[in-house]
Amino acid sequence: MVVILKNDHDKQQLSNLVSWLSGKGISVHTTVGATQTILGLVGDTSHLDIDLISALDIVEAVRRVQEPYKNANRKFHPQNTVIEVGNTRIGDGSLTLIAGPCSVESEEQICEIAQKVKASGANLLRGGAFKPRTSPYSFQGMRQEGLRLLSLAKKLTGLPVVTEIMDLSQLELFDDVDIIQVGARNMQNFELLRALGATRKPILLKRGLSSTYEELLMSAEYIMAGGNEQVILCERGIRTFESYTRNTLDISAVPVLKQLSHLPVVIDPSHSAGKNELVDPLSCAAVAAGADGLIIEVHNDPPHALCDGPQSIRPEAFDKLAHKLRRVKEICNL
Amino acid sequence: MVVILKNDHDKQQLSNLVSWLSGKGISVHTTVGATQTILGLVGDTSHLDIDLISALDIVEAVRRVQEPYKNANRKFHPQNTVIEVGNTRIGDGSLTLIAGPCSVESEEQICEIAQKVKASGANLLRGGAFKPRTSPYSFQGMRQEGLRLLSLAKKLTGLPVVTEIMDLSQLELFDDVDIIQVGARNMQNFELLRALGATRKPILLKRGLSSTYEELLMSAEYIMAGGNEQVILCERGIRTFESYTRNTLDISAVPVLKQLSHLPVVIDPSHSAGKNELVDPLSCAAVAAGADGLIIEVHNDPPHALCDGPQSIRPEAFDKLAHKLRRVKEICNL
Amino acid sequence: MVVILKNDHDKQQLSNLVSWLSGKGISVHTTVGATQTILGLVGDTSHLDIDLISALDIVEAVRRVQEPYKNANRKFHPQNTVIEVGNTRIGDGSLTLIAGPCSVESEEQICEIAQKVKASGANLLRGGAFKPRTSPYSFQGMRQEGLRLLSLAKKLTGLPVVTEIMDLSQLELFDDVDIIQVGARNMQNFELLRALGATRKPILLKRGLSSTYEELLMSAEYIMAGGNEQVILCERGIRTFESYTRNTLDISAVPVLKQLSHLPVVIDPSHSAGKNELVDPLSCAAVAAGADGLIIEVHNDPPHALCDGPQSIRPEAFDKLAHKLRRVKEICNL
Amino acid sequence: MVVILKNDHDKQQLSNLVSWLSGKGISVHTTVGATQTILGLVGDTSHLDIDLISALDIVEAVRRVQEPYKNANRKFHPQNTVIEVGNTRIGDGSLTLIAGPCSVESEEQICEIAQKVKASGANLLRGGAFKPRTSPYSFQGMRQEGLRLLSLAKKLTGLPVVTEIMDLSQLELFDDVDIIQVGARNMQNFELLRALGATRKPILLKRGLSSTYEELLMSAEYIMAGGNEQVILCERGIRTFESYTRNTLDISAVPVLKQLSHLPVVIDPSHSAGKNELVDPLSCAAVAAGADGLIIEVHNDPPHALCDGPQSIRPEAFDKLAHKLRRVKEICNL
Repeated sequence: MVVILKNDHDKQQLSNLVSWLSGKGISVHTTVGATQTILGLVGDTSHLDIDLISALDIVEAVRRVQEPYKNANRKFHPQNTVIEVGNTRIGDGSLTLIAGPCSVESEEQICEIAQKVKASGANLLRGGAFKPRTSPYSFQGMRQEGLRLLSLAKKLTGLPVVTEIMDLSQLELFDDVDIIQVGARNMQNFELLRALGATRKPILLKRGLSSTYEELLMSAEYIMAGGNEQVILCERGIRTFESYTRNTLDISAVPVLKQLSHLPVVIDPSHSAGKNELVDPLSCAAVAAGADGLIIEVHNDPPHALCDGPQSIRPEAFDKLAHKLRRVKEICNL
Repeated sequence: MVVILKNDHDKQQLSNLVSWLSGKGISVHTTVGATQTILGLVGDTSHLDIDLISALDIVEAVRRVQEPYKNANRKFHPQNTVIEVGNTRIGDGSLTLIAGPCSVESEEQICEIAQKVKASGANLLRGGAFKPRTSPYSFQGMRQEGLRLLSLAKKLTGLPVVTEIMDLSQLELFDDVDIIQVGARNMQNFELLRALGATRKPILLKRGLSSTYEELLMSAEYIMAGGNEQVILCERGIRTFESYTRNTLDISAVPVLKQLSHLPVVIDPSHSAGKNELVDPLSCAAVAAGADGLIIEVHNDPPHALCDGPQSIRPEAFDKLAHKLRRVKEICNL
Repeated sequence: MVVILKNDHDKQQLSNLVSWLSGKGISVHTTVGATQTILGLVGDTSHLDIDLISALDIVEAVRRVQEPYKNANRKFHPQNTVIEVGNTRIGDGSLTLIAGPCSVESEEQICEIAQKVKASGANLLRGGAFKPRTSPYSFQGMRQEGLRLLSLAKKLTGLPVVTEIMDLSQLELFDDVDIIQVGARNMQNFELLRALGATRKPILLKRGLSSTYEELLMSAEYIMAGGNEQVILCERGIRTFESYTRNTLDISAVPVLKQLSHLPVVIDPSHSAGKNELVDPLSCAAVAAGADGLIIEVHNDPPHALCDGPQSIRPEAFDKLAHKLRRVKEICNL
Repeated sequence: MVVILKNDHDKQQLSNLVSWLSGKGISVHTTVGATQTILGLVGDTSHLDIDLISALDIVEAVRRVQEPYKNANRKFHPQNTVIEVGNTRIGDGSLTLIAGPCSVESEEQICEIAQKVKASGANLLRGGAFKPRTSPYSFQGMRQEGLRLLSLAKKLTGLPVVTEIMDLSQLELFDDVDIIQVGARNMQNFELLRALGATRKPILLKRGLSSTYEELLMSAEYIMAGGNEQVILCERGIRTFESYTRNTLDISAVPVLKQLSHLPVVIDPSHSAGKNELVDPLSCAAVAAGADGLIIEVHNDPPHALCDGPQSIRPEAFDKLAHKLRRVKEICNL
């Protein structure tokens, strides 16, 4: 951490600050310039509250030079984290395909789609039971009944299940869920993150609509600080000024997150664009950029899907896409 | 709602769509242009799922022409909503001042600040007990004990209390709280909004960091749809590319929200800028733009505040500011 | 175009508007709803000034349903535009590689790099002579002398040259330049665009830092309206809240721009990220998403480049990358 | 400047860097931490190219601690710059009102508006002759003839004139213009800025749609580095995700720019919101926040204005507003 002092700082206050830091095991190196004095803080500064120091009368600005996350940081954990769910290993260099409808709508629907995506090589089944919707008047998901139907589809196909939790009070219902998804709007629901840190289930953590990589990793850190190290990072598009696509896929998130962290990175091309004709090119791009997996919306009847129809592809399109993606993965892994 | 059809749309599908809409009480007027056909939908379209229609093969795009919120809409409720808490009326043309520390830190601290801001004319006391922090390693608030200290300060001064809830499981602890605050990061925590809609307490709803006016009003709609009409809208700065200030106060939110909705609008100048030297000019601007109230961080010892020190002002500064603001309000109300 | 009227609109003014539109060859279909009246405008509305209509007292809002660009619109020009420069055809389904240093620094430098990238299969040489820099104290390019050195390198290798123009007064110096680049900060320098529309040279038009697809296409339209139809669209990263990368590559721009327009689309992975370690994954992603070409910064000595060193790759890295990209193109073209 | 080294940096390269810096008169203080080594650079670093240092193999990151602008920096020029034009002094604590139509449309129009706004106390006349428009098919301004009509209105009323330049080739036509405006889209047209730095006319520099304060000040620096110190900074709204207003007025720009720089700051409430009903509250807010002036669009017939009609107010509204603003200024100056 680097602290930039005001020009006319009080010497006594500076001396107080240095003593206080020293009491926390942090030593201070001072650089006196013509117009500015800079303090270099040496030691473990991750527990220092940057706001506290910024508020001091003698301080002009504080610049962090170290990442504020530890458990999620590749510097302290160089090996890739590999997450095992059933027969699937996420993050081991293979390509994990998670597929299924936006929402669970009926036993028939979820079972049919599950069988089809399995046949195309999907590794996990997705499907929303609790649905966060901007309007209170939109379909809110089948909720508990949706979870029951997901279990049926899992039993039928053997595919492990990924589905979203919206509030920590729902956690007790998620026993038979294999990977718990935290949605973009809940990325900074810190009480929920803390509760998930106390479980031992893998968490698929979606990046918030206007969050930075560091904020995403700090949310992973919340979960990991509770002892749950099985976090999968998911880029699902960020909000930009472009309104033609629903969101803007930040493809750089793939190589950057894998560089900053050891956690697996998956991409959601369906929510990123909100248009089914973009699922193919964005999926190819994600794999080419090094993604560990994809989470794709597949529906047997997109025009009649109860939510997010425009961004779902049909099982046949998924089948074709899955084959192409495995070939791209092969070349780009070389 | 206006539906733009693809050029080569199937006539049978169009006829199906028209029948389906008709079954929902919506009539359709068709405009056939040289290169495009447009459907004008007449009737109550607020319950129509825009995604469902967008997903149809024959549809190129759907444009809403009506606001998707009803309870929060001034068109259907022309009179200002006035919220009464103790002796204070928020939204009646007067200026409501909510003041207090970012976090409750001790009995002594909260009581001293409460007495001082009351003497300066504050109408309500603010103070955080549950604190949403980006890092799991930062101070998380005194939680339940913080709520107890707020009650003490309320008893001592008679000031009603505003404080933040972070999860619906905390709701049972908020009995003695007068206005429940929903933070920016929880603006789209729909389960929480729904739970608050079932209470009969006023809710101070903060705008999300990158939310639009419509999204804020849709979140108010979630609460109001549950029967709780006492919602106060709060602009607290949005995220922009400017990093000099913590957030960017969107001052236009004041006149625009008051035009679109009948709900009171308050401004948080402290979180908007994250710098105490900006609290004075931003507060003046907010009142000049027509805000119903302000929520200002006041701390007796900003450099030692346990959180958000840099943005708090001292009681003496608040006292001077309060006087200036009442004069600005007078002139701008003319 | 759809015009939404205010509820209490004056009938006489409405009748005036309808007559005025009729005089412009536009017919009006009226849909009267319970709470709103909507006008559907039929005819060529691309020359209508949307602001003029919005300003009318009787109008609540105007929604465009047709794209405001014509020459650049795939609807009116379904075939891909293919641009021929020397032996290279841009936009015909092949992969065009444009490579070279950020800035021309010396004869030796530009000639060495030109020879190396040619050997690796580059189709065109890039190199900045006029450099837009945020600070007046940074290196501003070799300017006219830089253009002379580019001509030398072109003569030596046969590679056609792409370089940036900063002001229309420089146009007379660009005789030996094969493709004129318009930088992101000049995307809406309308006087420059108009001047380039009067030339018959291909223009590589970079998307502005916070521009939408429509704004980019409207800038292409400025050039094309002047009779110059040879425009290449270039996505080079947009500004987002993420500061880890210099900009954020909007990979969706590739499939979307190719869908909306018939113009070729190239990607600049170097400026997008500002980090040389990201050039490889972003280039692969761009090709996988269907880009017609890439413009990549290659420098023989990145740490000593006079500008943008951190984002340049070495010739050996470019050579390896070029081979991989051709294989990705092959698979994704299938 | 602070340079953060990679953990495993080469000692020889570090020694080379230190010698090179020393040759530029910059001394280096090294802080060796457990996991990181930090270099503190002491001396005048404003001419150092941050990109060059970032590109070195041994460097992880570079953080600036000093502002990169000098001439525009209040630290080196504590007194307010006051710009005199005719009888008006901009930046001396008084309120400067600049008013007039978006575009000059006819002699009658500009003269009538000029007389009216003068009667209401406006200090300068605005009016566009060269108009930057997103579409090549929209009205582009009366150009040279517009400048002639502005001169007539100036002669008639004695009001000095502010109007926009779009390209440096137009500069010779601006002899009778008192303040030359640089539009938001040209804020980083560096060739134009350089040319304006060689004149001795005051420049009204508008902030770009997504520019930061630092970028705005660096563009002012371009002009000032050429010897022209008469720059007026203008905030005119930035692009955000909110589409209800055309742009979002960043009201914090007023106090922050005045703190960072000694240059006067004016606000354009008309372009900020794009809606005439917001001109009043935003103007009041701007003055309350400490703005030195306002530039307001006033038109005698907004619905028939050839451009930007929706955001213009009528002369009578301007008259009433001008009186209110002077009272707000009085109170907030106390």
